Order: sequence, then C-alpha cells, then structure tokens
Amino acid sequence: MVEAKIGISSRELIGPNDLLVVKIGGSIEEEYLDTICNDIAGHYFDGRPIVILHGGSRPTAVLAEQIGHPQETVTTVSGHTSRRTDPETLKIFTQACAGLNRTIVAKLQERGVSGAFGISGIDGRLFEGRKKELRILQGDKKIILKDDYTGRAERMNDSLLSGLMGLELLPVICPPIISSENKMLNADFDLAAGLLAAELQAEALVILSNVPGLLRSYPDEASLIETMTAADLERLIASNEYGNFRKKFMAAKQAIEGGVGNVILADGRIDKPITSALCGSGTVISGSLDY
Amino acid sequence: MVEAKIGISSRELIGPNDLLVVKIGGSIEEEYLDTICNDIAGHYFDGRPIVILHGGSRPTAVLAEQIGHPQETVTTVSGHTSRRTDPETLKIFTQACAGLNRTIVAKLQERGVSGAFGISGIDGRLFEGRKKELRILQGDKKIILKDDYTGRAERMNDSLLSGLMGLELLPVICPPIISSENKMLNADFDLAAGLLAAELQAEALVILSNVPGLLRSYPDEASLIETMTAADLERLIASNEYGNFRKKFMAAKQAIEGGVGNVILADGRIDKPITSALCGSGTVISGSLDY
Repeated sequence: MVEAKIGISSRELIGPNDLLVVKIGGSIEEEYLDTICNDIAGHYFDGRPIVILHGGSRPTAVLAEQIGHPQETVTTVSGHTSRRTDPETLKIFTQACAGLNRTIVAKLQERGVSGAFGISGIDGRLFEGRKKELRILQGDKKIILKDDYTGRAERMNDSLLSGLMGLELLPVICPPIISSENKMLNADFDLAAGLLAAELQAEALVILSNVPGLLRSYPDEASLIETMTAADLERLIASNEYGNFRKKFMAAKQAIEGGVGNVILADGRIDKPITSALCGSGTVISGSLDY
Repeated sequence: MVEAKIGISSRELIGPNDLLVVKIGGSIEEEYLDTICNDIAGHYFDGRPIVILHGGSRPTAVLAEQIGHPQETVTTVSGHTSRRTDPETLKIFTQACAGLNRTIVAKLQERGVSGAFGISGIDGRLFEGRKKELRILQGDKKIILKDDYTGRAERMNDSLLSGLMGLELLPVICPPIISSENKMLNADFDLAAGLLAAELQAEALVILSNVPGLLRSYPDEASLIETMTAADLERLIASNEYGNFRKKFMAAKQAIEGGVGNVILADGRIDKPITSALCGSGTVISGSLDY
C-alpha cells in the first residue's frame, strides 16, 4: 500500500474544516514542543478545529526524582506492567502534567494562538472513569493493591468540550481524570484521545511519540509499518505483540470503530510532525480500509 | 458601626442572584479547604453565580523545599519586599498552584459541584499583565533584576469568563498570568480578584485568609477592625500601614471603585467562612459608605 501514498497532498487524509485531534506523547522531550506548537499554530490559522491532549510521563519522572519519591512499577497477576500511583505519586503526576500543560499553552500563545486553553480531565468532569483494581502477588497471595489511583477514561463530557470550542478555544487537555467516586485518577491519555476522537467524530487522530510509528524491528526505523487495518489492530491487541504500543492500538480501535477517518501513529520529533502525519508519514490506520 | 450589624440576615450583604467572588488565600492550610468547599457548594446549590480565585504561596513553599530550591525574597530600591521568581521558581510555582487548583476542584466535585472548573490566568489569556522590573541594589549600584517573572494582572478576558459561566461552570482560577510578550508570570491574586470583581460587577468580594480580618494589633483577634470606608483604604495604602495587607487594600480599592458592593476581608479557618463574611464577620469595606 506504500505506492498508494505517492503524490498525496498535504490535506489528503483530512479536509480543511474537519476536526483534528492530536495526542502529544508524555515522553517526548521538551525540546520538540516548539516544532510541534509551530505546526499546531499553522493548522489553527488555517481555520481547522483542533483538540490537543497530552500525557505527562517524562515530567512526572523528573519531578518524582527531584522530590525523591521515584516511581515504582508493579506487575499484575495477569502479567501486565503498570505504574504505581500512590497518593504522593498522584500529587506529583498531577502537578507535573499541569506544568507541561502550562508550557504548551504558553508556547501556543507565543505563536498567536490566543484561544489555547488548558484543561484537565477533572474540570467540569471532562473525563470520568473507574478506578482500576490492580491485582498483584504478595508472596503467594493475590491481593488488590490499596491506595492506588489508576483508572481509564470511560465517559466524556461532550457538551462541555463542544461548549469550549464554541467559545473559539483550542483545548489542551491533560490528566488526571475523575472517578465516579470523585477521586482523581492517573489515566492513560492515548486511550482518552481515542475516546475523545470517537465522541467528537474527528476526521483524524494523530498520536505523536518519539518513534516514527510502529516499527517491525525496534529500533530499526526502516522497519516502519506504513499502513494497518482495523483487523490488524484486533490481532495485535489480542496477541499482545508490540506490548508497548498496546494502548495506542486500543485507542486507534476505539477511534476507528467510532467513525474516525484515520488514526496516524507518528513521529513527534520531526519538523511539521502533524502535517507530515496527515500526509501519510508514520503508521496510518484507516477507517475506510477492510472494515 | 458594630451595632448596625446586629440582626443582619445571612444574605444582607448580597442578593440571592448576585455574583459572588471568593479569593482563597494561598497560605491557608489545606485542612481548611473542606469547610471552605462545603460553604461554596452551599451557595452554588442556592443558585448563586460564583467565581473562585486562589493563590499558591503555601504549596509553592512546600514544593520548593522538597525540590531543594528554597524561595528567596529581594528588597527593591523603593524598600518593598518581593518574592524572587527565577525560571525554576516559576516552574515550581506553576506546578504547585495547579496542584492546589486540582485539589479544590476535586473537593468541589465530591460535593456535587460538577461544574467546578479549574483554569489558570494564561488559558485563553484570562489575565494579561506586564512583567515588573524589580530594581535592587547590587553593592552600591541599582540594577534591574534579570530573569525575574513577576507581574500584575492588568487586563481580564471578560468575554471568556462570561462564556465559561454561560456553560454553567464554576471557575476556579489560579496563577500564573500571561504577559503581553507571552511569558508566564507570578502575579498577586488578591489584585487579580479585585480586577475580576470590578470587571464582572460582582456584588461581593470575599477575601479569605488565615486571620479574622484586619487586626489593629496583630495577633490580637479582639482588635479586629469591623468596617472600613474607601477613604480609609486610600489612607492605608498611602501610609503603608499594615504592609502585609497592602495588596488586599489595593484589591479592595479597585473592586469598590469598579462598583462592587462590598469587599470583606475574612477568616478562612472557621465554619461557613463565606456565609459568615456575607453576614458581616471580618472587615467589611462597603462601596456605599462615605464615597
């Protein structure tokens, strides 16, 4: 399918007035935010409606180290690795995500995007979810990890986001999210981006990280998988191949099933990373193919 | 004027549909946030339009200590003491304010205030201001302190705030603010509250801190000054008496001159602190008196 992309114009994967959702990976180095924000500003001034989401793994790790409360990971009974979010880590995570959020909003303001508007998942209950029960082994016994504040965004306050966009704001959304019991939760924001793109019927969801897309043999960039179908996603999620991309696959699946035109797993470290992704650079998962 | 207050009902200083602005002092201990949020929720469920602002001095000091970058103060040439905000302190301040903001929003959500909505002064350029030039003595020479990010909120994006309230949100606003040159700034939020109350023509501005109001002889709580006029404010600002309350006086002056009915400097550590303030507890500065 590589040939099919030859000659694709810079807007082939999305029309000029279609909604674009961009997830900025929380592990992208801060030095790349300038080029990312340049590109966002370009699309904004083209009049395209945009929603940005971002995680906070890198700034959280930095702040946790500075404070002297390094992050732990736990392995669940089912064999998945999960970051431990005890109350202190939740506080660190919340502050670090907000710090990155303000940085991105200020960088967009510098570029004239006066509508850039930071918001967390708890504000106006934008993202509501359920606290996960992490089952771990303690010696030979399976126990539920207490005092852990991890969850998954399950519902979005659509009318809030539409209302904000009606005020000509460009939402820049970060964790935490809020639980049904009104606790703040650390939640994966690839999944939140998938939910949001589906709920808002976005035309494209671009997920930027610090690799060029899905690589068949990491870190060989020549092994980039250029296109995938929804059926491929199903298979990869079930097989747990490329485990570190699993949440991106799940997000893509939710988006595509929800009617999003294209999900592109793309490189956030290059010039015009979003425009390139919309031109087909990265791993393109198309809703119109084989589904 | 103490007698005049006998028998004042719980709504004497404000009508049921009048806008209430509450500033929560950044140095109030976190343990008092629960009672403050109880009171906010009560007014919210009464249907009163409310805007909350808060500073971040206490959480900033805590985080700065944790990180090992303790805060410095500088004395300017004109003899005022100012907190030094170097780039690292700005980052700490921004994160700490956001942490407190999320805490307050989550506490309000717990109480059923689903519209509670955190926002910083940079989002949508809510509060724009100018970078202060801090002139200090270096040996015998007067120099402008470089790399300091302090400023004062001078303009408010009224239509943004009205738009958010039109979405039935209860804004909970924190620093930083944004400069005309798009830099984040540490800004006093008593002054921001005064500006906001004036711009929105609030009926009352309640400024909560960890004292019962203005005390003639601190810390003697029996020396509470119960009422003040706008003329008193002018005099106190000019004389620099009660220096640590100077910004509150300036905020009150801006609010009263802007048409706000009453500004109440009140105790944030008591039960129903806002309701009590609206009943006349604290130092009441009335726009209708002697002006």
